[in-house]
Amino acid sequence: MASTLNRLLETFARIGATPDGGVCRLTGTPEDGGARVRLAAEILSRQFGLHVDPIGNMFGIATLAPSSQEAVLVGSHLDSQPTGGRYDGVYGVLAGLLAIEAVVARAAAEPGKARRNLVVANWTNEEGARFQPSLTGSSVFAGMMALDAALGLIDGAGVALGEALAAIGYRGTADLPLEPRRYVELHVEQGPLLEEEGIEIGVVTGCWAARKLSLVFHGEPSHTGPTRMARRRDALRAAARAIELHHQLIEASGSGAHASAARITVDPNSPNVTPSRVQVWFEFRHEEAAVAVALGDAFLAEAQAAVAPLGVDIEIAVDEQRGTASLDPHGAALTTAVARELDLSSMEMKTIAGHDALALNKRMPASLIFVPSQGGLSHNPAEFTDEAALDKGLAVLTEVLWQLVTEE
Amino acid sequence: MASTLNRLLETFARIGATPDGGVCRLTGTPEDGGARVRLAAEILSRQFGLHVDPIGNMFGIATLAPSSQEAVLVGSHLDSQPTGGRYDGVYGVLAGLLAIEAVVARAAAEPGKARRNLVVANWTNEEGARFQPSLTGSSVFAGMMALDAALGLIDGAGVALGEALAAIGYRGTADLPLEPRRYVELHVEQGPLLEEEGIEIGVVTGCWAARKLSLVFHGEPSHTGPTRMARRRDALRAAARAIELHHQLIEASGSGAHASAARITVDPNSPNVTPSRVQVWFEFRHEEAAVAVALGDAFLAEAQAAVAPLGVDIEIAVDEQRGTASLDPHGAALTTAVARELDLSSMEMKTIAGHDALALNKRMPASLIFVPSQGGLSHNPAEFTDEAALDKGLAVLTEVLWQLVTEE
Repeated sequence: MASTLNRLLETFARIGATPDGGVCRLTGTPEDGGARVRLAAEILSRQFGLHVDPIGNMFGIATLAPSSQEAVLVGSHLDSQPTGGRYDGVYGVLAGLLAIEAVVARAAAEPGKARRNLVVANWTNEEGARFQPSLTGSSVFAGMMALDAALGLIDGAGVALGEALAAIGYRGTADLPLEPRRYVELHVEQGPLLEEEGIEIGVVTGCWAARKLSLVFHGEPSHTGPTRMARRRDALRAAARAIELHHQLIEASGSGAHASAARITVDPNSPNVTPSRVQVWFEFRHEEAAVAVALGDAFLAEAQAAVAPLGVDIEIAVDEQRGTASLDPHGAALTTAVARELDLSSMEMKTIAGHDALALNKRMPASLIFVPSQGGLSHNPAEFTDEAALDKGLAVLTEVLWQLVTEE
Repeated sequence: MASTLNRLLETFARIGATPDGGVCRLTGTPEDGGARVRLAAEILSRQFGLHVDPIGNMFGIATLAPSSQEAVLVGSHLDSQPTGGRYDGVYGVLAGLLAIEAVVARAAAEPGKARRNLVVANWTNEEGARFQPSLTGSSVFAGMMALDAALGLIDGAGVALGEALAAIGYRGTADLPLEPRRYVELHVEQGPLLEEEGIEIGVVTGCWAARKLSLVFHGEPSHTGPTRMARRRDALRAAARAIELHHQLIEASGSGAHASAARITVDPNSPNVTPSRVQVWFEFRHEEAAVAVALGDAFLAEAQAAVAPLGVDIEIAVDEQRGTASLDPHGAALTTAVARELDLSSMEMKTIAGHDALALNKRMPASLIFVPSQGGLSHNPAEFTDEAALDKGLAVLTEVLWQLVTEE
């Protein structure tokens, strides 16, 4: 099974491959379409049913219990960051596919045991790289985001997500025709903890909180040559000051928070016009929601005071507060027990990164399982997890799914 | 004549008009094409010859002295910044057109007086908004930039200037079939001096120096969530620190320099990936070249020291040093004398902004004449100069051209 998983990962890594060994498969692009077509072929070749829902989530359905409407879902996402690695997301989808294949074989050998069906899912736009916010497909599926709002999300070039999905032939029309009961996701950690602790399986019990503040800095256009310096209202200078202040505030807080300002748009972005409108996407992440919120509040107050002398105003375009959440305790206990059975070391941990499991957890009990990432590196072409570690994750996932479809 | 000039300005302001009353006519776009077609019609309707050269410079040729190969050129540019006003560039082209019309009429009334021909020019990509560097068409014409290099300039979307010109039908094949002897350009000041001094005509004797440094900040992509803060190499944080430092350095220098950081590109520019590559266009302008150079040197040293602790390196992508220059003393003296004759107040001044006249001055004696700008505002939709002030500039230009085509 190991070699099959690695062969599949290799195949998918060629779709949207970048010269530096990574992948770039932004949602709704031809590369995303190529990966979807390939996944559809893998689903159909295993005699699973193929279904695409209205936000483009793809499902491969294995009917283990024809009389039941219930399904256990497993999956992750095929889209990537522009500087994506070969494992983030695609590992969970392909391991889910192979785990289901193994469970189907076992169910055939032990007839009457399976009480519910299995579905592998590829969730649309997990990354939020081309369209913000992230976790789009899983949030719509969980009923946390309206379908129309999701289809209407606009990329930097003015293209709507709905158009982009239609263009690659992956905008479906009907919801999944089963009752989802549980969700399990296998993912590379994207952080350094498992590697540092020498642990093989991460049992994720919950997530850090995040506050995402997208701020617009409003200045005034003027000629960068003759306009007197005191007369300028430079929105980029204001944004630069706020970005540095943001990092200094996080460091000074000693809170252990993670923070970033990673996306910026500048108008008119001409070398000879003082920038009049700049938007920056700031993030604050902390284990405690109250700390993430307080850091954001402190930053907003300090940033406004810091840029006012430049004649620049700040508008809050987005203030998204994601609280902490606890994932399914039953799934976590089961994962720990399965790891023990398979002689694998495991530890409970929190995820700092967002994952589809967190969105789906709003609708059904959801579980998240990590395997180590070399150097904790992710969203980087050099992202790497070795074959043995990947296989251990698949073995745990397979057994967890078997338990979840056969238990009472 | 006044009303003709204003009617023409009105007409051109509709081409690429923005909702806020400004214009956006970036080089090689359909809007630029529309303005060019309209100018061609104005040239032909006056029985001037129409010529387009290989870099897309447009010429309207009035043959006043058929036996002479010599020409006096007058003009400016029809392209604009994304947040352009209604006067920057287009005023000089249209006033040039009308001034030539008047000189042609006077030459017909005073046969035998004209010793050389007149040409109105629209220079390609003066603004440098879509394609950098600016002053492209005039620099090629002056022999300061190779045609192939200019045609190969690439915009932010990867389109070459040559392709863009071909797409709007304005990539010509042959050089201007005349000997250019002098150049005169009429322009709005884009700064506050004339208005503050209550002076009607600015006689530009030279320009400030400029140093343009385009710097690339090299970091490393990583996940903005789980990656430890100390592990990140954030190119946008480094760029932000450098932008603020740049402004502080200029202020602290007390040099009176003008400086800007107005254009930035960020890769991958996704909210969830630490930026790995950021490019910023910095400018330093000063009346003395040595000061502009020294400020740039000080900034480079300080910026490198400031971003090194962030694990970010700086690469110098462009280091363009434009020295001061003196414009044609004969043209300046003539302009001053003409203003006096016409009972208009005038003063000598330097230009801080770049102009085609500065590029053309490398090939032939060039003159630049300013009229006041309300509030010194430019590269802004609210750019404004009143009708009377515009007409005064046209009157001066007309008389200056008459002198230049008739003098020995």
